[in-house]
Amino acid sequence: MREFIPPATRFVDLPTEFVMKSGGILHGARIAYEDFGRLNAARDNVILILTGLSPDAHAASHPDDPTPGWWEAMLGPGKPIDTDRWYVICVNSLGSCKGSTGPTSLNPGKGGPYRLEFPDLSMEDIADAAAFTVRALGFERLACVIGVSMGGMSALALLARHPDLTRSHINISGATHSLPFSIVIRSLQREAIRFDPHWNQGRYDEESYPQRGMIMARKLGMITYRSAQEWDSRFGRARLDPDRRTGEEPFGLEFEVEGYVEFHAHRFLHCFDPNSYLYLSRCIDRFDLGESCGGTADEALSRLRLEKALVIGVQTDILFPLHQQRQIATGLSASGADVQFLSLESEKGHDAFLVDVDRFGPPVAKFLSVDW
Amino acid sequence: MREFIPPATRFVDLPTEFVMKSGGILHGARIAYEDFGRLNAARDNVILILTGLSPDAHAASHPDDPTPGWWEAMLGPGKPIDTDRWYVICVNSLGSCKGSTGPTSLNPGKGGPYRLEFPDLSMEDIADAAAFTVRALGFERLACVIGVSMGGMSALALLARHPDLTRSHINISGATHSLPFSIVIRSLQREAIRFDPHWNQGRYDEESYPQRGMIMARKLGMITYRSAQEWDSRFGRARLDPDRRTGEEPFGLEFEVEGYVEFHAHRFLHCFDPNSYLYLSRCIDRFDLGESCGGTADEALSRLRLEKALVIGVQTDILFPLHQQRQIATGLSASGADVQFLSLESEKGHDAFLVDVDRFGPPVAKFLSVDW
Repeated sequence: MREFIPPATRFVDLPTEFVMKSGGILHGARIAYEDFGRLNAARDNVILILTGLSPDAHAASHPDDPTPGWWEAMLGPGKPIDTDRWYVICVNSLGSCKGSTGPTSLNPGKGGPYRLEFPDLSMEDIADAAAFTVRALGFERLACVIGVSMGGMSALALLARHPDLTRSHINISGATHSLPFSIVIRSLQREAIRFDPHWNQGRYDEESYPQRGMIMARKLGMITYRSAQEWDSRFGRARLDPDRRTGEEPFGLEFEVEGYVEFHAHRFLHCFDPNSYLYLSRCIDRFDLGESCGGTADEALSRLRLEKALVIGVQTDILFPLHQQRQIATGLSASGADVQFLSLESEKGHDAFLVDVDRFGPPVAKFLSVDW
Repeated sequence: MREFIPPATRFVDLPTEFVMKSGGILHGARIAYEDFGRLNAARDNVILILTGLSPDAHAASHPDDPTPGWWEAMLGPGKPIDTDRWYVICVNSLGSCKGSTGPTSLNPGKGGPYRLEFPDLSMEDIADAAAFTVRALGFERLACVIGVSMGGMSALALLARHPDLTRSHINISGATHSLPFSIVIRSLQREAIRFDPHWNQGRYDEESYPQRGMIMARKLGMITYRSAQEWDSRFGRARLDPDRRTGEEPFGLEFEVEGYVEFHAHRFLHCFDPNSYLYLSRCIDRFDLGESCGGTADEALSRLRLEKALVIGVQTDILFPLHQQRQIATGLSASGADVQFLSLESEKGHDAFLVDVDRFGPPVAKFLSVDW
C-alpha cells in the first residue's frame, strides 16, 4: 500500500486507544500535520486549517519543505493567511493516506495494512482527532479554525464537540450535511472503484490496482469541482490534437475537455489510495451536523460559541451549493456571533477557493487582520 | 442482439443506398415510426415528433397499441398535441435499437448484426432519415416539427437541410450544439460502457453483457436529467429501508436517492442496446449546427424558413442549459419567424417536458391551437 506523505510532515500520537463514533477503536494511531509561521509569546495567534477530502497537511511551502502546497497562494508571509502574524497548523484528516492513520496504515498485530478492517469513519472522528492534535501541541484556545470543503464539515463538527477550542471560524464552501445530488455523485465514484475487479474488496496492490475505477471516480469528481460556465469559456468545442486522441475505436477521446479530465484523473491516480477515498467519501455523505447534535442543524449552529465567523460560498458551486453556506451563516448569526456571509460570483465552482485567490484572498485577509 | 420494438411500429424503407454524412452507406435500412390521429382532406395537419436519445416511436397510446407511450400526457385526443385535430408521426432515430436501422440490425451480407461496423452516425443522418420518412409517407409540407432534447438537435438539422419541409417548429430543451459539461458527462457514460470487460469491443451477447457499464451510464445520465433541487425536496437525507440496502460491505447503498437511481438504472438495462447508446451519445457530442451549415449557429438559425416557432427551456436544466434555448429563439427571430420563447421555472430539469405537463401542456396547446 502506498502512503503519500510530504517530507516535512510531523506527527502527533492519538491516545493509545482512540475510540471512534462507531465504537471502533484505533490503537496507536497518529495524526499528520505541518505548521507555518511562529507562535507568539501570548500563544494566542494559532489558526487550525482543516482540509478537503484529498489534500495533505502541506498547505504551503515553508523552510522545511519549499515545494508549493495546495493552498500556496493563500498561506504564507504577507499572504491572506499571513504567517508573519499567525501560527498556522494544517492537519491531515484521520482516514487519509497522507500521513494520518487510515486504511493504508499498519493494522497493529495484523502484520499488514488495515484496508477494509479500518473501523467505520465519521466526520466527528476527524474532528476529534484534529482537536486532540492541537491540544497535544499545547493549545486550548485557537484564534480561528478554517475549514474548506469537507473541512468545512469537520470544522463544524469540531466546533460543536469542542465549543471552547476556538474564538472564530472561517467556513469556505462547507455544509452542515450532504445533499442528494452530491450523495449520488459520491455513490457513483465509490461504485466505479468498488466494481473495478482490481479493487478486490480492498485487497489490491501496486501490480493489481483499481486504476480504471479511480480514473472514473476522479473524472466524476471533476464535473462537480468547477462549473459548466468555466468549461464553456475555457474549452468550448475545441477538439483534441489528433495525436492526443485515444485509440482507433470510434468512441475514444475527441474534445479538449475530455483530454483535460483524462489528464487530471491520471495525475490523481498516483496521489491517493482507493480505500482511503472510499472511507472519506462515505463519511462526507453520512455527516449531518443536526443528527450529530441530536436536533436540527440550525439548532446545532445556534448553540456554537464563537465570537465571530466568516462564511463564504460560490454561486456556481454544484457540490456544496450556496444555500448551504447561507444556512451556516444564518445559523451562526443566531448563536450571537458576529457573522459575515459572502456569496462570491466566481465561475470556478466548488474549487474556487483553490484557484480564485483574487476573490477569496481579500475577505479572508480582512477578517484576519482586524484587531482581536 | 436484442431490439426493442413496440408492437404497433410501422416502417419506411430508406433508399437502397442511404449515404451518410461520414460517407458510410447503409444498404436496405429502414426507419420505424408510429402515427396518431387522422390526416385531414387538405393534408395540412401533419406534425412530426423527433425524440430524445432513448425513446421509441411509441409516443402515446393509440388503438393499435393501447399501452402508454413516453409522451402520453402530451399527445392524444384533447391533449396539448391534440390528435382530434393533428395527424402526428413520431419517428425512431436512425441508429437506435427500437426499430430503425442501427448497430443491432443485421449487417446485410455479413450474417450478423452491425455492432461497431455500423457507419459513423451524425445528427444530420438522423434528420435526413426522418425527412425521407415523412416524404415517403407522402408529405412535402408539415404543419410543425417538434423536437425534444436530442430531438431538438435533429429537428434543427432537419430544418437547415430541408428548409421547406415544415411551416413551424417547437423546440423543447434542445440546443444547436453540445457544451463541454454535457460532453464530459456523455464521455464518462461511454467510458463506463467501453471499459466494462463484457462490452468486448461491442461483441457482447445476452450471456456476456456490459451490465455494470450500462448501469453506471444510466445513473450518470440521471444526475443530469432532473435537478438537485428536485432531489432535495424528494429525497433529502432519507435512508433506505435496511432490506433495500446492498451487501454487507461498508460502501453499499444507504440513502433513498441511491436506491432510486439504482432502481431506474436496472430498469433501463433491459431497454436499450449498449452499442446504440454509444453511437447516439457520440453523435450528440459532435452535433454543431453552425459547423454543419458552414458558419455560426446564429447564421444557420437566421437562414431557416419558418413561419413561427415556440422555443421552451427549463431554468434547472444542466444538460442543455437555458441559454442554449435562448440562443435558438434569438437566432430564429433573426430569420423573421414569429418566435415565442419560454423559460420555465420547473424543478424537473432537463426531463421536465416528460413529467411537468402542467407547465409544458398549455403553451404547446396554445401554439398549436391558433389559426394557421
